Amino acid sequence: MSRVKISNPFLDSNEPDFLSHFGITCTKEICQYFNDVKFVCMSGSHGRIQLYAETFHREARICLSENLSKTDRYVMYKTGPVLWVNHGMGIPSLSIMLNELIKLLYYAEATDVTFIRVGTSGGIGVEPGTVVVSSGVLNELLEPVLILHVMGEVIKLDAILDKNLCDELYEFGKSLCIPLEKGITMSTDDFYEGQARLNGAFCNYTKSDKNNFLKKLYSMRVRNMEMEGVCFASITHRAGIRGAIVCATFVDRLNEDLARKDQAPNIFHEYEMRPFKVVSTYLIEKLECNKN
Amino acid sequence: MSRVKISNPFLDSNEPDFLSHFGITCTKEICQYFNDVKFVCMSGSHGRIQLYAETFHREARICLSENLSKTDRYVMYKTGPVLWVNHGMGIPSLSIMLNELIKLLYYAEATDVTFIRVGTSGGIGVEPGTVVVSSGVLNELLEPVLILHVMGEVIKLDAILDKNLCDELYEFGKSLCIPLEKGITMSTDDFYEGQARLNGAFCNYTKSDKNNFLKKLYSMRVRNMEMEGVCFASITHRAGIRGAIVCATFVDRLNEDLARKDQAPNIFHEYEMRPFKVVSTYLIEKLECNKN
Repeated sequence: MSRVKISNPFLDSNEPDFLSHFGITCTKEICQYFNDVKFVCMSGSHGRIQLYAETFHREARICLSENLSKTDRYVMYKTGPVLWVNHGMGIPSLSIMLNELIKLLYYAEATDVTFIRVGTSGGIGVEPGTVVVSSGVLNELLEPVLILHVMGEVIKLDAILDKNLCDELYEFGKSLCIPLEKGITMSTDDFYEGQARLNGAFCNYTKSDKNNFLKKLYSMRVRNMEMEGVCFASITHRAGIRGAIVCATFVDRLNEDLARKDQAPNIFHEYEMRPFKVVSTYLIEKLECNKN
Repeated sequence: MSRVKISNPFLDSNEPDFLSHFGITCTKEICQYFNDVKFVCMSGSHGRIQLYAETFHREARICLSENLSKTDRYVMYKTGPVLWVNHGMGIPSLSIMLNELIKLLYYAEATDVTFIRVGTSGGIGVEPGTVVVSSGVLNELLEPVLILHVMGEVIKLDAILDKNLCDELYEFGKSLCIPLEKGITMSTDDFYEGQARLNGAFCNYTKSDKNNFLKKLYSMRVRNMEMEGVCFASITHRAGIRGAIVCATFVDRLNEDLARKDQAPNIFHEYEMRPFKVVSTYLIEKLECNKN
């Protein structure tokens, strides 16, 4: 059994810690409630993670908790050993959530925990609606590291996903007849210029600059871009947690920049349920196995 | 009269643009509704910005719109010429919001627009509850620029606030007997290690490293740290929009890392209303002036 690792000598204080962005005070009673957690599924949007939690509750027939977060920064739901948490958009917001969640699971003495990011992204050279299971992550400088700035110094932390978990999720997806690819995920801090879009408020490059860059990414086996993966992979690796990323793609960026959800909302709803379907099928099988 | 500037030759398409993170399709009728906007107030939390909008609606006796955002990414309220929008936590989330809001105000042909970030922060060498009006912003490397990564290249963009607006807001604050400081704001991408806290899941530095760093910041006239200012200053400057940042401080980081909101929620509620009070007093006077 492997406990969630933290690495901070200052945390052993006598007073219960307070997770300020969840509004949770880490008393023994509260932490005990999280002791059985084995899986944490996360996504940017709070509405989407609530939808996922409710759907899983119905499909797996496991009780659904109320929203366990006491602030409006994040939401958190629990269905037995599975937590559902949103992380907002971008690395800073994800990083706050992961720091506080990892402390919570550490205090709770949870063991053998797996984190899965179930997100949305822009595809590169894949049909819209394809689910990408990340085989690796790259930052904006095309390096597989999270860059952290600590007291004016630049620190690079390895961003590594769990290869076995990725392979397993990919096999589950294939069995469901969902359009699926395995590929590298690039994470950026900026959605418009950072992802070479032509439809932000500012754009100082040409269409051919953009196309050349996206083709270069494709040749490097990058299959989608989003805004959190490299931080997710780095922090889970650092905490000794198995991590995987499964994202829907809403557009093929080789063809277009904008997902016109206003013109076809039902299609995008179907797309965003696909990575959930992969993950929920996997979870239900794993939980059944544990029962037997 | 000065229009909101965008800088993107690709935006003049025949089809109405779609602001995907607000869920707003930019038809002529919809944009017309935003033509009279003169001020945009923003904050991270959606609950707080809703509270600010409702309080302003009552105090200024101006009608309050419903939530104009059609997604759960952001909320947006309108009270006459004042918009209230949340931006989530961190630069990536703020940057998406600003790109789409600036496009909206550009299509709406809004003129002479002022943006004010009304936020929360950790203070440096100031009493908890002090309001800091930012005189400037620094990034994590202590430079007054936003670092953007575009197609693998590092681009540094000046991050400049409107000096006159900051001075004016500071004078309004002083007249209200609210504890107030003018000082530099440092913006980081990471809340825990990025701000030299000792209470994250990871910490590889000593208490004295931390103290030395925070004292160095104090000597550079930094009075608070948050996670958006340098992007706010850069994008508003780039779009020709007057920008100012007014933040409550919840702790003095020279003394502590954690704001224990669980132990004194009312005090923190009072703190978070202080920067709003400064800004709402300013807005009401400006709007009255425009009437006469």
